[in-house]
This record gives sequence, structure tokens and C-alpha cells, in this order.
Amino acid sequence: MAATTPTPAVRSVQVAAPGAAPELVEVPLRDPGPGAVRIAVEACGVCHSDLLIAAGMLPGTTFPVTPGHEIAGQIDALGDGVQGWKVGDRVAVGWFGGSCGRCDACRSGDAIHCALLQVPGAAYPGGYADSVIVPADALAAVPDELTAAEAAPLACAGVTVFNALRRAAARPGDTVAILGLGGLGHLGVQFAHAMGFRTVAIARGSEKEPLAHELGADHYVDSTAGSVADVLQALGGAKVVLATVTDADAMSATIDGLGRRGELVIVGVSPDRLAVSPLQLLNGDRRIYAHSSGAAVDIQDTLRFAARTGVRAWIEELPLEQTGAAVAKMTNGRARFRMVVTTGR
Amino acid sequence: MAATTPTPAVRSVQVAAPGAAPELVEVPLRDPGPGAVRIAVEACGVCHSDLLIAAGMLPGTTFPVTPGHEIAGQIDALGDGVQGWKVGDRVAVGWFGGSCGRCDACRSGDAIHCALLQVPGAAYPGGYADSVIVPADALAAVPDELTAAEAAPLACAGVTVFNALRRAAARPGDTVAILGLGGLGHLGVQFAHAMGFRTVAIARGSEKEPLAHELGADHYVDSTAGSVADVLQALGGAKVVLATVTDADAMSATIDGLGRRGELVIVGVSPDRLAVSPLQLLNGDRRIYAHSSGAAVDIQDTLRFAARTGVRAWIEELPLEQTGAAVAKMTNGRARFRMVVTTGR
Amino acid sequence: MAATTPTPAVRSVQVAAPGAAPELVEVPLRDPGPGAVRIAVEACGVCHSDLLIAAGMLPGTTFPVTPGHEIAGQIDALGDGVQGWKVGDRVAVGWFGGSCGRCDACRSGDAIHCALLQVPGAAYPGGYADSVIVPADALAAVPDELTAAEAAPLACAGVTVFNALRRAAARPGDTVAILGLGGLGHLGVQFAHAMGFRTVAIARGSEKEPLAHELGADHYVDSTAGSVADVLQALGGAKVVLATVTDADAMSATIDGLGRRGELVIVGVSPDRLAVSPLQLLNGDRRIYAHSSGAAVDIQDTLRFAARTGVRAWIEELPLEQTGAAVAKMTNGRARFRMVVTTGR
Amino acid sequence: MAATTPTPAVRSVQVAAPGAAPELVEVPLRDPGPGAVRIAVEACGVCHSDLLIAAGMLPGTTFPVTPGHEIAGQIDALGDGVQGWKVGDRVAVGWFGGSCGRCDACRSGDAIHCALLQVPGAAYPGGYADSVIVPADALAAVPDELTAAEAAPLACAGVTVFNALRRAAARPGDTVAILGLGGLGHLGVQFAHAMGFRTVAIARGSEKEPLAHELGADHYVDSTAGSVADVLQALGGAKVVLATVTDADAMSATIDGLGRRGELVIVGVSPDRLAVSPLQLLNGDRRIYAHSSGAAVDIQDTLRFAARTGVRAWIEELPLEQTGAAVAKMTNGRARFRMVVTTGR
Repeated sequence: MAATTPTPAVRSVQVAAPGAAPELVEVPLRDPGPGAVRIAVEACGVCHSDLLIAAGMLPGTTFPVTPGHEIAGQIDALGDGVQGWKVGDRVAVGWFGGSCGRCDACRSGDAIHCALLQVPGAAYPGGYADSVIVPADALAAVPDELTAAEAAPLACAGVTVFNALRRAAARPGDTVAILGLGGLGHLGVQFAHAMGFRTVAIARGSEKEPLAHELGADHYVDSTAGSVADVLQALGGAKVVLATVTDADAMSATIDGLGRRGELVIVGVSPDRLAVSPLQLLNGDRRIYAHSSGAAVDIQDTLRFAARTGVRAWIEELPLEQTGAAVAKMTNGRARFRMVVTTGR
Repeated sequence: MAATTPTPAVRSVQVAAPGAAPELVEVPLRDPGPGAVRIAVEACGVCHSDLLIAAGMLPGTTFPVTPGHEIAGQIDALGDGVQGWKVGDRVAVGWFGGSCGRCDACRSGDAIHCALLQVPGAAYPGGYADSVIVPADALAAVPDELTAAEAAPLACAGVTVFNALRRAAARPGDTVAILGLGGLGHLGVQFAHAMGFRTVAIARGSEKEPLAHELGADHYVDSTAGSVADVLQALGGAKVVLATVTDADAMSATIDGLGRRGELVIVGVSPDRLAVSPLQLLNGDRRIYAHSSGAAVDIQDTLRFAARTGVRAWIEELPLEQTGAAVAKMTNGRARFRMVVTTGR
Repeated sequence: MAATTPTPAVRSVQVAAPGAAPELVEVPLRDPGPGAVRIAVEACGVCHSDLLIAAGMLPGTTFPVTPGHEIAGQIDALGDGVQGWKVGDRVAVGWFGGSCGRCDACRSGDAIHCALLQVPGAAYPGGYADSVIVPADALAAVPDELTAAEAAPLACAGVTVFNALRRAAARPGDTVAILGLGGLGHLGVQFAHAMGFRTVAIARGSEKEPLAHELGADHYVDSTAGSVADVLQALGGAKVVLATVTDADAMSATIDGLGRRGELVIVGVSPDRLAVSPLQLLNGDRRIYAHSSGAAVDIQDTLRFAARTGVRAWIEELPLEQTGAAVAKMTNGRARFRMVVTTGR
Repeated sequence: MAATTPTPAVRSVQVAAPGAAPELVEVPLRDPGPGAVRIAVEACGVCHSDLLIAAGMLPGTTFPVTPGHEIAGQIDALGDGVQGWKVGDRVAVGWFGGSCGRCDACRSGDAIHCALLQVPGAAYPGGYADSVIVPADALAAVPDELTAAEAAPLACAGVTVFNALRRAAARPGDTVAILGLGGLGHLGVQFAHAMGFRTVAIARGSEKEPLAHELGADHYVDSTAGSVADVLQALGGAKVVLATVTDADAMSATIDGLGRRGELVIVGVSPDRLAVSPLQLLNGDRRIYAHSSGAAVDIQDTLRFAARTGVRAWIEELPLEQTGAAVAKMTNGRARFRMVVTTGR
């Protein structure tokens, strides 16, 4: 699919209104505007946040929307003024779909907190399609070692945990616990292991223990079998607990398991209250904070790290026309562990 | 091993049992053991934590107790093996009354979190007395510029806020809000101002505004007049809110006033739950953590900083025999802002 | 000077070829292109780096050049697509004259290290003129408290030392020595004092001691009177030495005066070798590093900090037509301490 | 206070005077004093620093000396007041042989920089012996997974590089170059790989390339084949170069290979000057600093990390009576890569 002779129409999955079922439609192939590129999509991961967008819960979303913000493919057209990228480059795009460059966050070099952050699939049509157009500043290069289907989930799920872990206070050898063994958590355990942390996986039930060890965990904690905090303290106290779940109570249950100056790092979204008191935090000067994904350069770092160390999302692929089924499987919690839709390229 | 010819008996304020009234008694003058020094007390500050100790709420306290952990005076005897100190040295002692040197925290250079931390007035007789004996590792040198009465409250209230502020994420020019204008808060405002922070004082009622400005605040927020968070956001968002109050709700009310990567730093003790959700923290990757006082070297740094910059606790002095009245005034919230008992030396 | 009715010609100081004398010429008033703004210049500071540019030593400079990168004035025209700024805004521009947004440094949020950094006066005509056109991302807002002549030198000399100091390892109360008491150094002493550092000024000769104290220094070291390192060690060792001079030997002479984990922070440019061995650095794990100015947001922070704390460059103003004299005075080392040319607005 | 019935005499290697040949002598078995423990030595690594000590170059060394500060064995007697350790515990001791607890560094939690640091083999008889007595604060626990001979070199060579790497600015995925592939370097490559760094090994000659890859290096640079800096820049620039060599010129040759805000971290001792200018450092705000080994808790962390990740020094063992041969082999550069003398226990 060269830039010069585009096919006149491409497939796109659209949600007509908040809560409507996704439909596969044909749309005209468009050309990228100034500063943007067009990507011939090969794969797009399915993320829980797509549901929020499709439900109309992200402010500023206008319908119909084409969700999808775990995009991987090849550049097939360049808008005016784009530099540093060329047709044929293999690229990925995640939650960070472009920043304004003018707000306080952007001027401070903190683009992921851009006041006008564009999220693919909400600010513009996303990756459940044959073709997407994205601002060039949202692009991350994909290393040769990774297929498009491998790269896609790393561009959102992957960068979220990789970036949180590499910026946390833990240093190699420290004890890092990953709370949850789903789409984020199974990556978190692999990354933590590859970073040299003493890695603890925490999940519900004893049946996930072999999985945890297969992913690289040194220890497994069944959160239904007793006090998670007590087990963490018996291991010496965690320097970091990375909370990949969305259950605020499950997060709170780990706080007393933090060691001296330990951190609860939250990447899972929940509007529910944490159960934590100042007194608890004063016991060892514990910390709680949230970590938001990462910008394009962070995604690129994530992909490179994964390419080099062998960290991969466990994925199940379905063709674009089965996007509805892919989303349903992810919604029902039956995905092991990330669903990826592919365009057949 | 006294330096001169000590009087055979000294005065000491004792609490016979949890909740009992303090009584002034005479006790024999003792000699310091190995590694300890004896201090001829000149002044001792009254801290809210003394109440907890006198009520028997600090584990390991044995009665009768002599409270007091904001001690300033002169060394008048040295135990065996003490090096680096001599009789006549002006010294102060705070909450950090000695560490074990053997636990994981001590071996890691984090002595304030010593598993066997000795608190004066609980682990051994404290500063409401003519004389105290303390381990030499608890000593901080008092600069000539400070009187004993000035140094005493800086050894606990002072180091707590000074140390929290100098170790927080704020850099000179950043907006730092001090929540509360009491014993800790009125020092926090002074320190924040002297560190070059854009300083915001938050307290209840409009009548404290002149005080806030007198202490060095650039802005004052009356927490009873509307949303504290909204006012902080109108100022650009706080990089740090230093919570010197013990009201968890008041702390929680500031969280939405934190700017990008802002921090709520807690030094006030409360067993109540904070009102905070993961979603709130994800909005700008906010942080919450606690900060515990400081070790002897931190106290020494606090005293030096205060001596050089003119930061002083506002104190009211009463003689040792009126310790009960001093404690009552502090308990009733009528102290402006720290009570100090003096021995008349 | 409104955007709608520009005067047809404006004055500009030009250097025709490397080393040529600056000449005042008339040039047509141009309109800003997309993403740029035009500034009606009120004042422009004279920086030593202007000499390097005028001598043709900055790669990529094309002649004739109009130097000047300490610019302050008012926006009088906006190019297409500029957001967040309006005609009449008071602004300043420094060494950071715009970044590419695409290189690795820019994508990493580290714009001052942009591979294609535009320096005003080299990449495009600079501030020795009635009018300049600059990319909007180079703008810093000027607070009301500062005149244009006050703001100008803070946009380069000011941000360089302010930014270096706020990002160094020193915490309030630590000992910070400023090496040199010239254009950068006299600002460094003021900033260090306002940040709560124990401030040491180091310069040649005893006659600068009163000046040092006037600027806020706690201690003065005459570098011609003996070993600077010995004096610093007698003061307890410096946590930071900020080297504002360009003499590599003078910098090197301070290294043994650094305390444990102390830092020599270099902002002065020199191609000469430092005199330092690994053994010297291992004595206390000392550090040496350089610090490059700051981006637009850093300049804005500098201006705000100065506005609030009273830090000001000591300046001497000359009209634009005497730019040659201003440059000469600065070159001869007779400026006290920054020369500023003004347009008479 | 021996645990069982100690033999009345033990073997010890002694150097009678600076530069004298080491001799194996019999000395009486002593009992540990207060706060100290006696270790039945099983293995002691040979470190280049032993030569400096044996040559009388470490201030404060009194002869005869028994060198050896990479000690591993079992506690066989406890002095008065020792807590937290018991007879039979497997322990290791490195360069950090005890600290004073009173100096500024100790009070600040920075014991490795103790002003009165005791180095085994200099401050007291070291590990080339059947038995050593050391202060309890110098002890690190040895995990079951490590033999004594494996633990010994990790207590000095190991902690030096492990600690430097975990405290450097590099985050997982960043490029870390290890300069030198000797006793320290071959450990550095293994540790860097296990920490998730993209690891570059730099050494002289092409024949070490297979070794570098075997140790885990992603890239190898032959420093004799061209510009090391150019090769590092072609790889994107190093975030960290860990200099394990003692050749200051070889260190200096890497500085231009550092990326933006990259660090040259020096652990190799040399009195020679580095070849570096301020201008070079300003190009990307590069840093140079030294890193001194680590305290007992750091050694313990090193041992645990090695036990879990499989990092091991490559060692050659010789019996205690052949200590002279072991030292000679290390001196001649023929050790691959650390010599360890064993007592036969």
C-alpha cells in the first residue's frame, strides 16, 4: 500500500453512539494533514479503556467513534512537514496520541499530562481499522524483533507497567510485588523479573501460582488465602507494589505490606476510596501515587526493552471483522491476556 | 563522672500512671553510663506527643514516666567511650532519642526508622527535669545564635517540618502550601518562605491571614470559606501540601489542589481514613506520603538553618514547676505556638 | 506599536562578517510566520556568548547576524496557529530560541538539548533591534513586577544559575559556593541566598568581600589569598560549587573543597582541561557535571522567582545605538554586572 | 567465649614490613572483644587493594599486617553485646570493616564514608588466615545458594560494581557500558545484564568479544580498534559508562561517548588526571563521579542479588598456604578473574 496509489476505501469499526454495538463499515481512505502520518494498520490491541470511550465516558469524545489505541502497522503516507519518519517505517501508537506542545505540562517536558492530550479512538478515529491518521509526535518505532501483533499491546498495556516500574523507587534486587495477573499484571511480572527485581505476584486463588512462576515471579501470594500484607512483611516488606487491578480494596490491602519507604504505585483506574490512614503511612514513611502510561518515547523504550529481553504479552488474535468478539472476550475477563485484532496485512 | 560537683538531687516531673497528673519530685542525680551523656536541662518544649506518652499509648512505656522530648541544655557529664562531645557543649535532643545501630533501618542509614528507636520521655526519663541522660548518638549541637528555649521546640516540631520540606519534591520557586497554622504550621510557613518557596498558608478562619503574612506566606487560604482545592488550583496547583494538622478530612480536601506530580506530605498523626481514590491520584500522577521527623543530624541541620535565617518558634515560657499549666495550655489549643518549660539555669 | 499598523522600517544592529564591528541599520519590519510571534523589543541584555556568535564560532551561523539572546518586550504580532499568547503580552526570550519537537531530546522532554536548538542571534536575527520574530515555544511570560530591562538578563544569565541551583543536589541549609562574582556569579549569590543555602562567594581579591555580603553571601573567600579548597573544607566542605567562571584551573581548585558527595556544577564554558583525578573524586564520591541554561518554562520560573524574592541583575543601560559601547564594556570586564541595550520604548 | 573448643593456634599470612613477602605463621586464637565476632574463615578473595596495603600505602596501616578484605566464613564466637548474629551464621566481610558511628558521615547514614572507616587487613588483621575478628556492624549474611568461595569476591569486587550500577542514573533499558573486563568488569557485565540494561562491554582486543557475550553483553567494543566514543555514539550514546579500569586515559576516551545527561562512573582508582574540559561536559550536560564500594547492608544486597540471578565471579581457588602464588597471579594479570584462597574448612 504505497502512498502514491492508495486504495479508495478501507474498513473501519465504528460505534455509532454511546453503548452501541461496533459495526464494520467502509470509509474513504484519507490523506494525512500537516504534521501527521497515515498508518496501514496491521494489528490493534483491545484495551479496557476502549469500553469507556465507546460508552462515551471520556470527555470530548464525539460519535461515531472508531476505538483502538494499541496500534501497530506501517507508515504509508506522510503529511506536510513530517520529519524523521518515512513511508514503510514500522510504528506503534498507544494511549498517547499526540500533545499540544503549548500547555504547561508540554512546556515542562511532561507530555503525557498534556492538557489537550489526544487519545486515539476518542480524539480521532482509532486503530480498529485498516488505516489511521495520527500526529507524528505520537509515533514509536517498532523493532524488527517484534511482530505488529506483539507490538500493539505493548504500546499501551506494556508501556504503562514498564514505565511505572522503571520510574519507581525500587532498585535492582528490591522486592517488587505485582498486584493482579491480567492484561497488565502478566506483563508487569515479566518486566519486573527482567529488571532484576525480586518479583512477587499477587492474585486471587492458588491456581495462578504456576503461571506466576512461568512469567518469572520469585514468589506467589494468593490474596484469598489470608493477609496479603502479612505475607509481604514475611518476605521483608515490599519496596514497590504495582497495582494493576481496579479494585481499591485490593490495593489498600497491600499497604501494610510495604516496607520502609515503600510505595504503592497505582496504574489501575478506580473511583472508589482507598482505605488508608495517615498513621498507616507514617509507619515507615510509605507512599501512594499513581502513574499514567507514557509518551511516545516511553513506548519506544518499552518496545526495545521487550525486543531485547523477550518480554511479550500473551495474546489471542482475531481478524478485524471479529472485533466485537474480541472486545467481548476481553470484557468477560476470558482473554489470556490481551486480545489483538488484525487486518490481514 | 561529673564535670564539677553536681547537686545530689534534681527536680523531675513524673507521671505515676497512665493519665495521672504530673508531679514535681526530687530524684537523685545519676551518672551517665557508657556511650551516654548527662545534660543539665535549660529548656524543654511541650509536644502533643507527650500526651500520648503520658496516657500510656506508646508501646513499651513503663511508668512512672518523665515526659519531654524537646530538650535543650548543656552537657555536664560524659559516660565512658563518648567521643566528639565535651562537658559544656550546648546540645538539643528531640523525638530521636537514640537508635540500635543493628536493625535493617540502622544498617541502611535510616536511623529515624530504627526498629528499637528510643524516644526520650518513654524509653528513658525525658526533659521535664533538671537533668537527663541520653545516648550520645541522639545529640545535636546548638548554635550560639539560639537560646536554649529557642532551640528546644526546633528539636522536634522544627525538624519535623524542616526535614519534610527539604526532602519534598518542591524546588525553589514552586508552590508549597502549609496546612495548619499551629505549633508545626507556623514553623512550616517560616521555613518554606526561607527556602524560596512560593508559600501558601491554609487555616481555619479569616482572622489568621495577617499572622500568615507576618510569618512569610505569599498567600493565605481560609479553609472555611470555600473549596481549598479550588483556591490552590487557581494559584496554579500546589507542588507540595505539607499537612501539619491531624484532621484526615482536612488533609483530603487539599488533594485536588495538587498540581501535576504534586505531593501531599503528611506529618500529622491520625488513625482516620483519608478520602482519596485512585482516579484522583491518576489526575496528574499525584502522591501522598508521610514523613517522620528526623535523626540527630537532621535536628542539627534544622538548628543551623534557623540560626542563620531567623526562623524561630513563637514560644511561651513557664518554669519547670508549672509544667502542668504548660501542658494544659498546649492541650487546650491556647498556646501561641509552643510552650517551653525552663529550669532557671 | 500595534500589529495592524506596523512601521515600515525598524533598527537592527548587524555584524556583517565574523569579527566585523556592529553597525546600526534599518531593515523592513517583517511579519511572523506560522507558529511565531513578533516582539517589539524594549531591552536586550549583552551576553559573552554574543561575542562567540559575532566571531562566527557557533556552527551554523550565517552572516550578517544580529546578535542578542536576552530579549524582553511586548508581542505586537502573532503568526498563524499561535495559541496561548496575545498581542500586548510582555515576554522574554533567552538562549533557548526554539526547539524542533522531533529529536530524541525533544521527545524525551529535554528541549534545552534539542539537536536543532535555535539560538536567537544565530539561528535568526536576535534582540539588538527594535523588533524580533521568534517561535512561540521560546516565549516566557514576564511578571508585572519586573521591567523589561530587569527581565532581559534574567532570561539567559539568570536562568542559567537559577536552574542549575534548583536542580543541584544541595538542599536548603547546605553549603553552596558560587565561584566568580561577575554577570552570572552576582546573580548566583543572590539566588543561592534566596533559596536558603548557606552561601559562599569565591572571587579574586579582598575588595569584593563587601559586595559579596551585600548580595547575600554568608562567607567570602578570596581565591588569591590561599587554598580555596582548604577554606571550603574549614567551612565543612561545599555540597555544591557553582562555577560561573570560564577558567578551568579556577574550577579545578575547588574540587578538594567539596564535601562528601559534593558537586562541582559548571555553567562557564571553557575548552581547557580540568585538573582532576579519579582518586580525587573517590575521596567522598564527588561529582562534576555541566548544566546548560534552561528552556522557556525555566526562564519563566526564573522571572517569577526573581519577581517574588527581589533578586535582580545589577545592570547598566545604554540605548540601542550604543550597542557597540555596551558590548565593549562587557568584553573589557568593566560591566557591573550586565549591560542592557534599550530601544527607548 | 568460644562456641566449642577452639584450637589454640591458627594460621595467618603476614607481611612483616612494607613490600616484604607474605609468610604463613601460626598465631594464637584470640577471643572477640565487645561488639565484635570471630569468624572461622573459609575463603578470602584477593583484591588489588591488598597490594596497596601490603606496600604500606594506606595511611594508618601498622606492620606486620595480614591482608584480606574479601572474607567469607562462619561465626564461631561472639563478643559481649553482639545482637542479631549467632555462632554458625554464614557471613562475609568486605572493604567496609566497621565504622565509628559518630562522625558526620555515620550520623548522616553514609557509613561507607566514615572518617574512621576500618578496612580489614589494614585496621586489623584480615582474611588471609584461619580466623578473623571483626566488628559486628561489618557483617553481611551469606545466602545458602552461595558457597564461601563464591561469596568472598562479591563482598568487595561484587558490591563495588553492583552498588554503583543500582545507584547510577540508568534505568532498565538504558545503555550501560562496562569499561574493562577484569575482576570488576566481568562482574559488571553480568550485573548490568541482570538489571535489564542494554549492556556494552569495552575492552582491549577482539579476542575478548566471545567472553563479553558469554557474560551477557549485548555489544562489544574493542578499544584498540578505533574511537570508543564514536562506537558508543553509534549505539545512541551511553547513559552510564562504568569505569572498572585504573587507566585515566581509557576512562577519558569514553566521555564523548556519553549520551545526553550521561554519566561516567568511576570505581577504579588512579592518581592520574582525566582528560576532560568543561566544554565537553556541557555537550549534553554530562557527569563524572566516583563511587566507593558499599557498606555491610550493600554487600548483603549484592549477595542476595547474585544468589537469585546467578551472577558469579569467575574464580580460581588456591589453599591458604599458596597465598603468595594467588597474589602473584592476580598481580600479573593472569587471574581469570578473581583469586580466592581457601582454608580447607
